[in-house]
Amino acid sequence: MSFEQEQTKRQTEINEIIQRYLPKEEGHYKTLMEAMNYSIRAGGKRIRPMLMLETFRLFNGKYIDILHPFMTAIEMIHTYSLVHDDLPALDNDEYRRGRKTTHIEFGEAMAILAGDGLLTLAFETAAGAYDKVDVKALDAPNIYRRIMRAYKVLSMKAGIHGMIGGQVIDIEFVGKSQTKDRLDMMYLLKTGALFEASMMIGAILAGANDEEVSITQSIAGDIGLAFQIKDDILDVTSSDAIIGKPVHSDEKNDKPTYVAIMDLARAKEEVSYVTDRARKAYESLPYKNEFLRELIIKLINRDK
Amino acid sequence: MSFEQEQTKRQTEINEIIQRYLPKEEGHYKTLMEAMNYSIRAGGKRIRPMLMLETFRLFNGKYIDILHPFMTAIEMIHTYSLVHDDLPALDNDEYRRGRKTTHIEFGEAMAILAGDGLLTLAFETAAGAYDKVDVKALDAPNIYRRIMRAYKVLSMKAGIHGMIGGQVIDIEFVGKSQTKDRLDMMYLLKTGALFEASMMIGAILAGANDEEVSITQSIAGDIGLAFQIKDDILDVTSSDAIIGKPVHSDEKNDKPTYVAIMDLARAKEEVSYVTDRARKAYESLPYKNEFLRELIIKLINRDK
Repeated sequence: MSFEQEQTKRQTEINEIIQRYLPKEEGHYKTLMEAMNYSIRAGGKRIRPMLMLETFRLFNGKYIDILHPFMTAIEMIHTYSLVHDDLPALDNDEYRRGRKTTHIEFGEAMAILAGDGLLTLAFETAAGAYDKVDVKALDAPNIYRRIMRAYKVLSMKAGIHGMIGGQVIDIEFVGKSQTKDRLDMMYLLKTGALFEASMMIGAILAGANDEEVSITQSIAGDIGLAFQIKDDILDVTSSDAIIGKPVHSDEKNDKPTYVAIMDLARAKEEVSYVTDRARKAYESLPYKNEFLRELIIKLINRDK
Repeated sequence: MSFEQEQTKRQTEINEIIQRYLPKEEGHYKTLMEAMNYSIRAGGKRIRPMLMLETFRLFNGKYIDILHPFMTAIEMIHTYSLVHDDLPALDNDEYRRGRKTTHIEFGEAMAILAGDGLLTLAFETAAGAYDKVDVKALDAPNIYRRIMRAYKVLSMKAGIHGMIGGQVIDIEFVGKSQTKDRLDMMYLLKTGALFEASMMIGAILAGANDEEVSITQSIAGDIGLAFQIKDDILDVTSSDAIIGKPVHSDEKNDKPTYVAIMDLARAKEEVSYVTDRARKAYESLPYKNEFLRELIIKLINRDK
């Protein structure tokens, strides 16, 4: 199977897992469930749960049932952040992945509540991992501790010292000139934080040791950083049709970007440098997962 | 000490507990922390953590350290729901408790993110309860199980089948004629759900049995229901100065209320009936907490 076929296979697998945890579209608040499911079914690439799953496999994780709730939770958190980010008061985007954004389709009030609903359901879903532990198993206390640790990483990286912090900096930076260091910090939080959570949780739940978890964190942070620099590059070099959203939107919105503070060639060099660092960190691990290695490279070298 | 003095004493105690978990106002996303703290320090009555604490005391709870994170979490969840509810796309309120609402003070984007931040921090804070368990204690496995159960109640009651569900129904009902049953359901979710979570978690963490937890749930649901009917009554009988927000706002917003579907006298009778049911349920419990009993009565018979 080609890498693309492998990836599609996993995407289908992940969609089936997520599907199990989605709310039924029924009852007096049916519209809410529809808005939530509309957002999460918008056809994302499921990168975060995929990174989590493959990191879990890299460290030869055993209890896959415990991973599933976390895979679903991270995608719910990612989705809620997009729904809220697209709102008129934030990025004011009408299209995402070629479809109308949630507030355009369901109205602003419902989009705010659907985002809140997804975030709350993410934490409820992740907490459900405790129920999957075989209480009679000899290593049960160990597994409980891993879940607690994974949970802490999830809530921290999604929160004010993680993704939300990054979103705030993004808003505060608009229209202000920036340095590379400040942009790096913003990208590391805004996109890096959920990538970090994904790989760290995969490692933690598989039983990786502290040093290994810390290596996965640095790889994931670099993926997030390179991913965002690439986003800045694509915003000026690509076309609407290829990336599925309007290009040159950063300039229009007066957003600070890498290509605003350095030329394209330097920005591309930066991507190579960060990619190389991530690759080396990956190779320092005593385990192999060929699909994960390729996924990391493809994520950074994407052309859409 | 009078009941009012007792209540103020507890309010101060609760504020000190919450304070410990609030984010420091520093760093690149200082404004976010300021918006979050502005919202939570707006001087609420801390009814939910107070109900949780007093229910815990009613059942002679032992490990108060485990209760504190949950007391803080429920107030954070209540606060985030107010911040998002006040937004222009929802209730569009400019004042709350006599102060400017968060989006008026910090802008809409920051209010959305501050709400998201509070919700995420609530779950992170509650999960911190696990760290407070003495792993060497004989009853540690028991305490872990209680925390897991409390956590599940918290996320469910805050979520789409709890408070958020109620908020959605509230929006969907605007401008439509209603029946008493449908209003009851909305109130039970919108306000009742967090009251239920508060009392149930207090009971669960204190080690109450299933039947006792279920009785506290029904008492709390009735408090929420009576509280909301009273809110409808106050909206037509009180003045702006007394309740700290504009009266007649329900009528203005075309919101369905008790006084829109029945006359004032009948609505007041309804409050008495629900109050009586809650009182009887409370008296069926084999424990006593005089302050809690008075608190429940005062909550329902409030005049502001």
